[in-house]
Amino acid sequence: MPRKPNYDRQELIGRARDLFWQRGWAGTSLKDLEAELQMKPGSFYAAFGSKDALFELALNQYASDGVAGLTALAQELGPLEALKRWPQIAIGNGAAPAKACMLSKTLLELRAHNHPLAETASQHLLKMEATFAALFAQAQAAGEIDAAHNPKALALRYQSDLLGLRVSAEREGVDGVAIAQEIADDLGAL
Amino acid sequence: MPRKPNYDRQELIGRARDLFWQRGWAGTSLKDLEAELQMKPGSFYAAFGSKDALFELALNQYASDGVAGLTALAQELGPLEALKRWPQIAIGNGAAPAKACMLSKTLLELRAHNHPLAETASQHLLKMEATFAALFAQAQAAGEIDAAHNPKALALRYQSDLLGLRVSAEREGVDGVAIAQEIADDLGAL
Repeated sequence: MPRKPNYDRQELIGRARDLFWQRGWAGTSLKDLEAELQMKPGSFYAAFGSKDALFELALNQYASDGVAGLTALAQELGPLEALKRWPQIAIGNGAAPAKACMLSKTLLELRAHNHPLAETASQHLLKMEATFAALFAQAQAAGEIDAAHNPKALALRYQSDLLGLRVSAEREGVDGVAIAQEIADDLGAL
Repeated sequence: MPRKPNYDRQELIGRARDLFWQRGWAGTSLKDLEAELQMKPGSFYAAFGSKDALFELALNQYASDGVAGLTALAQELGPLEALKRWPQIAIGNGAAPAKACMLSKTLLELRAHNHPLAETASQHLLKMEATFAALFAQAQAAGEIDAAHNPKALALRYQSDLLGLRVSAEREGVDGVAIAQEIADDLGAL
């Protein structure tokens, strides 16, 4: 079988990611994936091995896109402004498969089953938390936030509020934009 | 078949609720339920009709227990103190099947599938939000919170932070108690 170029592979993983993100692990069958990626079972197996292996690649892509997106935003706007804008961005993409975070959806679905993908999701949430903490520390170094705060504690609360926002934004009739604005305002008061 | 007394039925629904809460809709099979409730398929069908019908009863029980628990706490402690304690209580029950809220887990799992139980969960989240808003309004009437705030907006943000806390508390190594304390401290500053 000719080897597909890597950008094709990333594009296929991205389509699988969107399906998993929207429908969850149990809600996405091998058949769904083969239809979405337009692959026959043999090619799917040769390219990705299994649904779980592809789910892990999808989680990895989702998480590294998140860290890269936030890092680019911070380079553009500075650390505090990036942290203030991030909640709006997280719920503001109308084309996203879900408002809720794929990592938290995976954790909630699979943790009770002791599924290894729940641990993968946990590890990615930790990396995102560390990215938030680094930006809070930079904002302190720049004098934008009072130096008395613990950047790790700020990051933990911020991430928790962000996860809550993204669950809330899944609800019909909930004004996620207002909640995102409040989270941003809280940061302005630090 | 002799009719079982109602308290037995509530106890059975409670055991099903715990299984659904922990493992989710897709992660709980009819076989799992029959084993947990020690019922044969015929008796299960006669008593509950279907997995979905039992899931709805379980959601209803979960939600009405939540409203009743918070209302009782507010009668004991007053509205503001009850709202401050509630986050700790929500994550503090070591015997609970999960830290995350069953309503939000159901919403996240089933909304993309347009499953009617996602709408049931949404409706219960709305009732919980209204309960929070009523307590915020009572706290304002008692002079415990500045009257300038909109109780509905306070309730929306509080519920969002609470959902985030309960997702965060599912993570290994996350200090949910510290986040719950911060949410309570925020209320004290209103």
